[in-house]
Amino acid sequence: MTTSGLQIRSLVKDDNTLEISLAQVEFPVPGPDEVLVRVEAAPINPSDLALLVGPADPATFRQGGTVQRPVLTADIPAAAMRLVAGRLNQSLPVGNEGAGVVVAAGSSAAAQALLGRTIGMVGGEMFAQYRCLHVNQCLALEEGTTAMEGASCFVNPLTALGMVETMRREGHKALVHTAAASNLGQMLNRVCLADGVELVNVVRKVEQEKILRELGAKYVVNSSADSFMSDLTAAIKATGATIAFDATGGGKLASQILSCMEAAAVSNMQVYNRYGSDVFKQVYIYGGLDRSPTVLTRNFGFSWSIGGWLLFPFLQKVGIEKMLELRARVAREIKTTFASHYTSEISLAQALSLEALAVYGKQATGEKFLIRPQQ
Amino acid sequence: MTTSGLQIRSLVKDDNTLEISLAQVEFPVPGPDEVLVRVEAAPINPSDLALLVGPADPATFRQGGTVQRPVLTADIPAAAMRLVAGRLNQSLPVGNEGAGVVVAAGSSAAAQALLGRTIGMVGGEMFAQYRCLHVNQCLALEEGTTAMEGASCFVNPLTALGMVETMRREGHKALVHTAAASNLGQMLNRVCLADGVELVNVVRKVEQEKILRELGAKYVVNSSADSFMSDLTAAIKATGATIAFDATGGGKLASQILSCMEAAAVSNMQVYNRYGSDVFKQVYIYGGLDRSPTVLTRNFGFSWSIGGWLLFPFLQKVGIEKMLELRARVAREIKTTFASHYTSEISLAQALSLEALAVYGKQATGEKFLIRPQQ
Repeated sequence: MTTSGLQIRSLVKDDNTLEISLAQVEFPVPGPDEVLVRVEAAPINPSDLALLVGPADPATFRQGGTVQRPVLTADIPAAAMRLVAGRLNQSLPVGNEGAGVVVAAGSSAAAQALLGRTIGMVGGEMFAQYRCLHVNQCLALEEGTTAMEGASCFVNPLTALGMVETMRREGHKALVHTAAASNLGQMLNRVCLADGVELVNVVRKVEQEKILRELGAKYVVNSSADSFMSDLTAAIKATGATIAFDATGGGKLASQILSCMEAAAVSNMQVYNRYGSDVFKQVYIYGGLDRSPTVLTRNFGFSWSIGGWLLFPFLQKVGIEKMLELRARVAREIKTTFASHYTSEISLAQALSLEALAVYGKQATGEKFLIRPQQ
Repeated sequence: MTTSGLQIRSLVKDDNTLEISLAQVEFPVPGPDEVLVRVEAAPINPSDLALLVGPADPATFRQGGTVQRPVLTADIPAAAMRLVAGRLNQSLPVGNEGAGVVVAAGSSAAAQALLGRTIGMVGGEMFAQYRCLHVNQCLALEEGTTAMEGASCFVNPLTALGMVETMRREGHKALVHTAAASNLGQMLNRVCLADGVELVNVVRKVEQEKILRELGAKYVVNSSADSFMSDLTAAIKATGATIAFDATGGGKLASQILSCMEAAAVSNMQVYNRYGSDVFKQVYIYGGLDRSPTVLTRNFGFSWSIGGWLLFPFLQKVGIEKMLELRARVAREIKTTFASHYTSEISLAQALSLEALAVYGKQATGEKFLIRPQQ
């Protein structure tokens, strides 16, 4: 017997509009290695917004539908339509991660072991009342951990651990992080403090500097300060950071980080080299908070690289053993190192209100929404 | 007994000027593993100009000195002085490579074997009448190869071979090259034709298209054409190129190449992915013909990288065995695959004339100067 429930859907139509709605969906009976989960909590991550609101013009959103079944509609600029050609006229479910209670399980031992347990899960389609998925996409939470506590047990925790792991694998000894006062940034700060890794936190506001310093961060630099370039160079010199993870993507921040890394490297050189230092400098762009072009003023020699970084390719690269090791650590430390904080809890229907969208759509540091699908 | 001769020098002075002059130098007696070479020919490569003219404002060059001992002087913009802080007040010799005849050799067998031979050489200070250097920096040319034929046996040949080798080592199967009608580009075209590697040549002018097509190039696209983006995407689709070597560095060309690679990859995808394709796309910047910032419009997913590429770090990475293998091929094919063509031959003194500088300083495709230090 199938189970029925609500699911958020995002649809790009060929009349250049985006429509976000609630669908009544029949969730399947789990196969042998699957479980059916009653979703209790799912965070709205920045990585969800690309699929949820796509390239729609935020200023054009309008409310439709009913209170129980709201619909949000917005216009998509004509030039942006080619970016979403691949999803045209497909009603897509949304939501990278969540947590809930296993209410039905397939016949395998692995599936049966999860029956009745509270679990974290990853794999999309989480902004819904139910989710049927493979046991490998589940993380059994420890006794005493609630679904709300475990809702963000994949994306941010594994991203923070993945950054530190990438740093080690690629031969760097300290790292730089931008938008560092975010939920993820605070988590990375806790991981680095726990693991004895030096971290240079880059923020934009004095309040954000304060948040991180109160959390024990040793190096916090403010990109709005006049002294930003010399502050960042000094912090890079002190830590030896030669790899950075940039959440913003656009503008000149990535270039500034490479320049400061080069300035720190050159200050240690004995002999002039017209090609710059031979210290290899890496910036990974893992987000797109600033959608404007990335502008590189190449005054940092030839030993540098800038590229994209995403969690799932990283996990594939490190392999299943390493991933299970990282996940086990997250489960153990979910209430401490990997604790998330939410500023609002909303139902599925409330997620489709102009008021809520206006806040979570901005991806402002400090604002974090948790969807409670059973409310 | 030392040998005396002329040597070109470049000097950045703390009054914000650059001075290029000829110095009378005593060249040392070779040590056991060294040889003294009478330099017969040395090309002016784009990579020499950074050291020779540095960040001087080309419009401010003025002629001084005498006909036998000319001096060129230019102003350096104040903002650019920090880029050359490391070479301030040091009179530096110039010239990456050249060829000549070994006129004195150290006591070792390796050095003695080169006595009287015509050799190619690398290691700087080649814009001079003599050069004393280690035998490892020498490539003995085959019987019947002249110094003029062997003058460019390192930088361009090993760069062309290094690009193809990098392509293979990093798992790509075809490549894109910009400024493709240059001496280096024509050489790369010959290497790719000889090795059966598919090459997409990007040029800026119709004449350059013609040059390459006459040399047998299969894929030539013109970045000035209205159809550039679709032409490049089609060529990338046909060849499967996922790595590019860009000589220009500045502007939007690197970004356009990544966009076209992504468009080619997406056209092969069955399922929409909001993060773009998982095809890894690499652009290496190996020159700086365009000094303006690199502008990346990140519409090519997250599986990409852009970075610096230089010949000497590449040679260090592949190791001595591989380098010797590549050098041996260059010596064998110096009159065919790796032949260079020069549009002007000048003496050391003529290199320090406003007329010559005005031409070789522009790094125009097709113009290539050879210095003949004994003239």
